[in-house]
Amino acid sequence: MKPLDQGSIIPLYYQVKQRLDARIKSGEWKPGDKIDSENQLMTVFNVSRNTAKKAIEEMVQEGTLYRIQGKGTFVSHPKFEQSLGGFYSFSQVLREKGFNPTDIVLEVKDVVPSAAVRAGLQLSPDEKVVRMKRIRCADGEPIILESSYMPKSVVLDNSDLFKVGATSLYDLLASRYGVTIIRAKEAFEPVLIREDESIHLKTEVGKPALLLERTAYDTDDRPVEFCISIVRGDRCRFYTDLV
Amino acid sequence: MKPLDQGSIIPLYYQVKQRLDARIKSGEWKPGDKIDSENQLMTVFNVSRNTAKKAIEEMVQEGTLYRIQGKGTFVSHPKFEQSLGGFYSFSQVLREKGFNPTDIVLEVKDVVPSAAVRAGLQLSPDEKVVRMKRIRCADGEPIILESSYMPKSVVLDNSDLFKVGATSLYDLLASRYGVTIIRAKEAFEPVLIREDESIHLKTEVGKPALLLERTAYDTDDRPVEFCISIVRGDRCRFYTDLV
Repeated sequence: MKPLDQGSIIPLYYQVKQRLDARIKSGEWKPGDKIDSENQLMTVFNVSRNTAKKAIEEMVQEGTLYRIQGKGTFVSHPKFEQSLGGFYSFSQVLREKGFNPTDIVLEVKDVVPSAAVRAGLQLSPDEKVVRMKRIRCADGEPIILESSYMPKSVVLDNSDLFKVGATSLYDLLASRYGVTIIRAKEAFEPVLIREDESIHLKTEVGKPALLLERTAYDTDDRPVEFCISIVRGDRCRFYTDLV
Repeated sequence: MKPLDQGSIIPLYYQVKQRLDARIKSGEWKPGDKIDSENQLMTVFNVSRNTAKKAIEEMVQEGTLYRIQGKGTFVSHPKFEQSLGGFYSFSQVLREKGFNPTDIVLEVKDVVPSAAVRAGLQLSPDEKVVRMKRIRCADGEPIILESSYMPKSVVLDNSDLFKVGATSLYDLLASRYGVTIIRAKEAFEPVLIREDESIHLKTEVGKPALLLERTAYDTDDRPVEFCISIVRGDRCRFYTDLV
């Protein structure tokens, strides 16, 4: 291993970071691999504990590495990047990226709509809704916890929704009820993972997540689905072009 | 006060929420106002402590109310809503909404660009950058902590950047250097507020925030600014139309 450049204006901890980054980019260290310990880095690069610690800490903060208490430091999995450039279906996006999308339907239930659901779906005062809770996975890994609210006047038979997973919700609405979703509004807010969410998403309480609120409209411009998603912040990233 | 409907299928805690929401919507309770205590709600609505607690807890989770330890529960300020429908300038958006945008420039400094800055600005290997750190406020309230990185080949005199605040950065780049920003890419990730950020943003460590990464391009399609913003999650919300 080539020694660090002690005379450079680039700080030593930053040079360590660059070396570690290079080993990840080259594929020598793969997602999920355990990297060298602080002690090993001190020996390999001939640096102080503080220098090794600072390099690792910045890479953890940047999301390149993650720590498991008592086990070590590991290479992060790259995040799913989702463009907000146009209407998208999560399962379609995953498929295009070479992942196998699967859904686990947790519950299908008639519920009293909250004020937000009522406003989103433009419900009349006594209109009823059905809620479908599901976990959305990529290659079996839970990524998003989703609650979809739909008017009972659209979903005539709750038991249809248990077919979601074998088929996508939007495909089901189209084939079973002739309802085609063509556009959506989405709003984003950062939140912390709560306990029930952490269990379903196999992540820790208090980790950062995005709360995504989607209202989806059909060809008659009717709001057909109001959906609240908790999106794992360590696995997803959204981007958009502003022109 | 009209009593709650004990025979309704709508749970009592939910009826309490609806009443409290109505008092906020009507303007009886304004942003920053302290609302009734749990004990007061128990008396006013003739409900159990659990019912009063659950109503308040859901409204805190939804962001309608916030708690200050040892002081009580208060009505939240409405969030700034930012459309991702097109290119925007934060100060312009605030002005259009009737707020007075102010910037506090914390630091202007030449720095070694990180890999992300280097890639975002498409820098040549030994190209230098200047970093401007600033707090962006609406009517004096700190909302966003921003670090803008710009090539030294664009910003010829660092001292110009201390004029930001009296003028907007983009106006300054245009008037001083003839560089007009016309489009940007943005990426969003949820993060937790860190200690140094909490001090500048006058909020608590560990609260949810959005990390917003912007690359801004000029009329020659050159990346001119790479900007990392920490946006307070309790004050801002982003939305978009997906067609």
